[in-house]
Amino acid sequence: MAGNSIGKEFVVFSFGESHGKYIGVIIDGCPAGLPFSEEDVQPELDRRIPAQLKIVSGRIEKDKVEILSGVFNGFSTGAPIAMIVANKEAISSDYEATKDLPRPGHSDYPAHVKYGGFNDYRGGGRFSGRVTVALVMAGVVAKKLLSTFDVDVLAYTKAIGKVKVDKALSHEEIRKRRYETSVRCPDSACAKAMEEAIVNVKQQGDSLGGVIECLALGVPAGIGEPLFDALDADIAKVLLLVPAVKGVEFGGGFAVAELKGSKNNDVYQMRNGKVITSTNNAGGILGGLSSGMPITVRVAIKPTSSIVKEQRTVNLLKMEDATIKVGGRHDPCVVPKAVPVVESAVAITLADHMIRAGVIPKVLKEQK
Amino acid sequence: MAGNSIGKEFVVFSFGESHGKYIGVIIDGCPAGLPFSEEDVQPELDRRIPAQLKIVSGRIEKDKVEILSGVFNGFSTGAPIAMIVANKEAISSDYEATKDLPRPGHSDYPAHVKYGGFNDYRGGGRFSGRVTVALVMAGVVAKKLLSTFDVDVLAYTKAIGKVKVDKALSHEEIRKRRYETSVRCPDSACAKAMEEAIVNVKQQGDSLGGVIECLALGVPAGIGEPLFDALDADIAKVLLLVPAVKGVEFGGGFAVAELKGSKNNDVYQMRNGKVITSTNNAGGILGGLSSGMPITVRVAIKPTSSIVKEQRTVNLLKMEDATIKVGGRHDPCVVPKAVPVVESAVAITLADHMIRAGVIPKVLKEQK
Amino acid sequence: MAGNSIGKEFVVFSFGESHGKYIGVIIDGCPAGLPFSEEDVQPELDRRIPAQLKIVSGRIEKDKVEILSGVFNGFSTGAPIAMIVANKEAISSDYEATKDLPRPGHSDYPAHVKYGGFNDYRGGGRFSGRVTVALVMAGVVAKKLLSTFDVDVLAYTKAIGKVKVDKALSHEEIRKRRYETSVRCPDSACAKAMEEAIVNVKQQGDSLGGVIECLALGVPAGIGEPLFDALDADIAKVLLLVPAVKGVEFGGGFAVAELKGSKNNDVYQMRNGKVITSTNNAGGILGGLSSGMPITVRVAIKPTSSIVKEQRTVNLLKMEDATIKVGGRHDPCVVPKAVPVVESAVAITLADHMIRAGVIPKVLKEQK
Amino acid sequence: MAGNSIGKEFVVFSFGESHGKYIGVIIDGCPAGLPFSEEDVQPELDRRIPAQLKIVSGRIEKDKVEILSGVFNGFSTGAPIAMIVANKEAISSDYEATKDLPRPGHSDYPAHVKYGGFNDYRGGGRFSGRVTVALVMAGVVAKKLLSTFDVDVLAYTKAIGKVKVDKALSHEEIRKRRYETSVRCPDSACAKAMEEAIVNVKQQGDSLGGVIECLALGVPAGIGEPLFDALDADIAKVLLLVPAVKGVEFGGGFAVAELKGSKNNDVYQMRNGKVITSTNNAGGILGGLSSGMPITVRVAIKPTSSIVKEQRTVNLLKMEDATIKVGGRHDPCVVPKAVPVVESAVAITLADHMIRAGVIPKVLKEQK
Repeated sequence: MAGNSIGKEFVVFSFGESHGKYIGVIIDGCPAGLPFSEEDVQPELDRRIPAQLKIVSGRIEKDKVEILSGVFNGFSTGAPIAMIVANKEAISSDYEATKDLPRPGHSDYPAHVKYGGFNDYRGGGRFSGRVTVALVMAGVVAKKLLSTFDVDVLAYTKAIGKVKVDKALSHEEIRKRRYETSVRCPDSACAKAMEEAIVNVKQQGDSLGGVIECLALGVPAGIGEPLFDALDADIAKVLLLVPAVKGVEFGGGFAVAELKGSKNNDVYQMRNGKVITSTNNAGGILGGLSSGMPITVRVAIKPTSSIVKEQRTVNLLKMEDATIKVGGRHDPCVVPKAVPVVESAVAITLADHMIRAGVIPKVLKEQK
Repeated sequence: MAGNSIGKEFVVFSFGESHGKYIGVIIDGCPAGLPFSEEDVQPELDRRIPAQLKIVSGRIEKDKVEILSGVFNGFSTGAPIAMIVANKEAISSDYEATKDLPRPGHSDYPAHVKYGGFNDYRGGGRFSGRVTVALVMAGVVAKKLLSTFDVDVLAYTKAIGKVKVDKALSHEEIRKRRYETSVRCPDSACAKAMEEAIVNVKQQGDSLGGVIECLALGVPAGIGEPLFDALDADIAKVLLLVPAVKGVEFGGGFAVAELKGSKNNDVYQMRNGKVITSTNNAGGILGGLSSGMPITVRVAIKPTSSIVKEQRTVNLLKMEDATIKVGGRHDPCVVPKAVPVVESAVAITLADHMIRAGVIPKVLKEQK
Repeated sequence: MAGNSIGKEFVVFSFGESHGKYIGVIIDGCPAGLPFSEEDVQPELDRRIPAQLKIVSGRIEKDKVEILSGVFNGFSTGAPIAMIVANKEAISSDYEATKDLPRPGHSDYPAHVKYGGFNDYRGGGRFSGRVTVALVMAGVVAKKLLSTFDVDVLAYTKAIGKVKVDKALSHEEIRKRRYETSVRCPDSACAKAMEEAIVNVKQQGDSLGGVIECLALGVPAGIGEPLFDALDADIAKVLLLVPAVKGVEFGGGFAVAELKGSKNNDVYQMRNGKVITSTNNAGGILGGLSSGMPITVRVAIKPTSSIVKEQRTVNLLKMEDATIKVGGRHDPCVVPKAVPVVESAVAITLADHMIRAGVIPKVLKEQK
Repeated sequence: MAGNSIGKEFVVFSFGESHGKYIGVIIDGCPAGLPFSEEDVQPELDRRIPAQLKIVSGRIEKDKVEILSGVFNGFSTGAPIAMIVANKEAISSDYEATKDLPRPGHSDYPAHVKYGGFNDYRGGGRFSGRVTVALVMAGVVAKKLLSTFDVDVLAYTKAIGKVKVDKALSHEEIRKRRYETSVRCPDSACAKAMEEAIVNVKQQGDSLGGVIECLALGVPAGIGEPLFDALDADIAKVLLLVPAVKGVEFGGGFAVAELKGSKNNDVYQMRNGKVITSTNNAGGILGGLSSGMPITVRVAIKPTSSIVKEQRTVNLLKMEDATIKVGGRHDPCVVPKAVPVVESAVAITLADHMIRAGVIPKVLKEQK
């Protein structure tokens, strides 16, 4: 079966390639009555371009969104919302010379095998990180919908290379300050060290990865499904399809494998008439359902595969060893750019599950 | 939308509760012509019961499979294959006294909220680890199908608590020896230390978690889909729905977040006329597609939530603080039991994607 | 993709073959809190056996339902409801002699091609009308759910061969009397003529078809989806998968192709503060959405393909012309037996769409 | 669940409204390697505008297609193919005055209820016949794909009002001549009478319906699925979602309800080493699978709901009786315009099922 959509109630369908005419997204299942316009989307697209140009790719993507359908008189209608951005800055000639040389770390080789050579190889084509623009556009709708129901999704950079945020950050700090630094880290001292690490690695013609943490606040208890559509399973799926993500963990994550049960279990208590847990090692999800505590998830992002250094590869036409110097302009570290993508991925999944649970209705009557 | 199935071509549908009459599974989309009988399933079910009883739960589940449909004259027919096992050993009275006291670390509380109290709370009901029997039954079909196409899926215990396998294990060693030890660890010295750790923690009335690694060997390049049905995203989803899994990582995993690109990239080379990579930090998956290298994935399993020690909780009827001593019989460590489940989860996803890619046909003509 | 399920919120999954061990069904998505037991199902299964044995097949299927999961303390839990009936009466030896001779009007030939000969050919296997037992079991759940929301689904025999109900029947008459006659026709004079026609055709070793009409009363306006999941499109799909159905029409049906617009349009008017239409040529559905008027649909059922008379066919092994006398015991007219099946098909689709619209909630709180 | 897509392997996703900016379609699952360009689409779009303007609506839709993604170097890439046409000719002011007056025969009233008034009501919005442009665009891809595998889909007008094609038409005649007449009827004498009937009814300010027949030639035996994804059920679904279609029948259709089995059964015989049936009352489908004979299906199309004559209706704001004279420009008969739509609907479904069966591969290697 074709696989370019995700979700069951809030369905996100993506199309477009890195060097094609457009990147597009359709949201099928946005409730009617959500106030929505192109002005909601633009700021979020701009966040994919870190503020300080010295640390970014030379390719500046001035993405301008156009809504094609599904919005009327300033509100969603209940019909599919289609949005596109044009691919203006792509320089395809960068890729012609090396089209038979798969770039290490990219999907070039398996994509060539899968599609019998018919795939659009330019800039990774359908497999490019560029297509995350679709996720961001859908994420704007999801986040606006969630905020109507007092759910807030906040991602930020927790580590770049070996520079890590060690101290605890308040939700308020994350909410207010994550987009103030170019690296999307709310801790300014840390952010400065991260920037330096990126500048250094760029000078070496090399690249860095990192870790992004995402919190979802205000999600009521009982959202999700048992077993196959577990909320954490669905969130993990959407996060892992983001290019460069190599791991995902919830709450205590891999570290809980070393804890004893008596230490790891989050015990319940009453607070102000509500059931809460004293700790949150579960990351807000139990048995695939939200527990009412903050949902906490982290992803590992690999260092950018496109590096300036010459690398070994093979020539797929001649089936012999070869070398490649990857052309194009690339970020030495995609972590900052990935922050709004991670936020969108989590928001999309939560919107889907909250509509599935009937907590978000099909018509936002109270909006009118 | 209802959420009790997974997959698009090899669809696995699960039903049943921990203390209901049966646990069942349906496989919709198994190609016609696969030799299959109840004798294929039984040994795998038996593997969910570790060999050495001293380290296991007192509840011995003698699961006996019955095939209800989809098999005729010893071959799959192309129609849905339904299988059930009866729940003989469940002692439901263990749960009556504590039905208003959600067990810490379990889904009791969010399930109560989600289903308005109508859910079967006995032993976790639909949310119990017991339902992974369905995955194991489906996994048998998937593994038999994959083996017809020379794909081998091998999981084993990599860590229990703080005891870890440090040395490299050959594929052969893993294949032959993983089910020889009660903890499903092919390294016998390590296995012994793991067993001791489990015995110790059981004596303390406490529990342990661990890490399972799974390899898929022989998967051809180009299996998977770009973006939304990325092979790693789909594998991650199925692994994370396994109860107690809190994290998943591929290849280098979280560690690659600290590497530079020049170190992390797996460069291509020709070997015996085939394209391979010198290293496999990607864990066999690039851009959501298999690269032809071994698929490598690890999951973090939390310590068993059901422990003998008294724990704080709340009374959902009276909405006040309370304490609970969790009844029932439980494993102090579910990691060994989860090994065939993880293997099944990966096998199911690979079978699904290999049929989707057309690499496994709808009729196994060559079988007859 | 595998195709043995239908629906998006109220998902019906079917398994089993005519001469296998069981026919089974799973309902995934039944809201929690519906009172439900095996006693609800049994009477409906019994309706598949017409009251007067002289007009039916010699094969009496004493179907006894067993609920395997999803019901606890007399209520649906929100987990999948699995139900099975054993195939006790099947005599498979009837089919061995003719297994290479496809029966005219049956799926034997294309099924043989599709599954490369691995299909269970006994009694049509997976393609048998016997599998409609699954629809009937699911229909019981759907009808009980709908009745909670004051929706009533009523099917009855409108024609058998050339004997037709000509006069208008009140909803009350249909509701009360449709199961009083062996042919499931509420008009007793007509029913008598239909019975005679069936007895006559049976004596000739031949068979008859007919027309079933189904009404859905009480469906609120606005149920359905635009375009691809139009309510009428979804109802038509489920009706056409019922074996022997060759056509479906709504409201005025094929006859409106000859009307002018001014005659066919159903004009609106206010009645007791509600919007109604003066006529109902649309059959209660406009643009894929329910209009609030009764949904009216008719299906054409072909004469039973299994007849006693010798017929021409081919030998698939020898690839040469042959003749066949179809064995087994068969109804000379399946129309009466199909009445509860049609009712179930419509009820299942309405339950699905009413949950999708949010009109039926995920938890029937008011039930407890 | 959201409902704006159809198909499982060849998935067609539609967006756009009658008076929005664009009508769009995405095809997810078109195999890689199909030669395809905008020039393939344009002629088919032009066929929605009947040749003789005197019989058509004043609104001339000069639809110009733009391909947004999924095509590279003249071939499909395997990625989603997105296409749009701009809505240039829509005059929305026609609809402002009557926005609270639901037009008889249209979805205005149920759509208003469903979406709480947020729906785009202009020209029917998402429910307009205009959105069938999406089906036609997808149909071009499907038909090109099918023709690669020697399958031909041919629809034509069989009746308009009471004027009907009575004589048998050869496949060749239908193929060559169906688009030669403005009414899309290959029988020129009949076509002339149909044209006159349309001109007459237009002068009366009224409208006409009709019947379209569609043949699919060359479909191999064994395509389809048992029960829930029966080929005829899926074809019926797609046909019934086409606005104005009120009934669908296969082969002998409703007439077989009056036949005896011995007359209706299509007996098998060998011809030139192939299995065929002597007659084709089944319309090429048995038990949900193609039989290898031509697939034959007919749809009933209601007379256009928008007529010039004043009609009764209600005012939804004041909830009182009212009258309406429907504005806008409309076809007195949509049957000719619907012919390529019906052809597309059948082609889309066949492409989907032939890919599902593995008969059409995921990569058209032979094309390159």
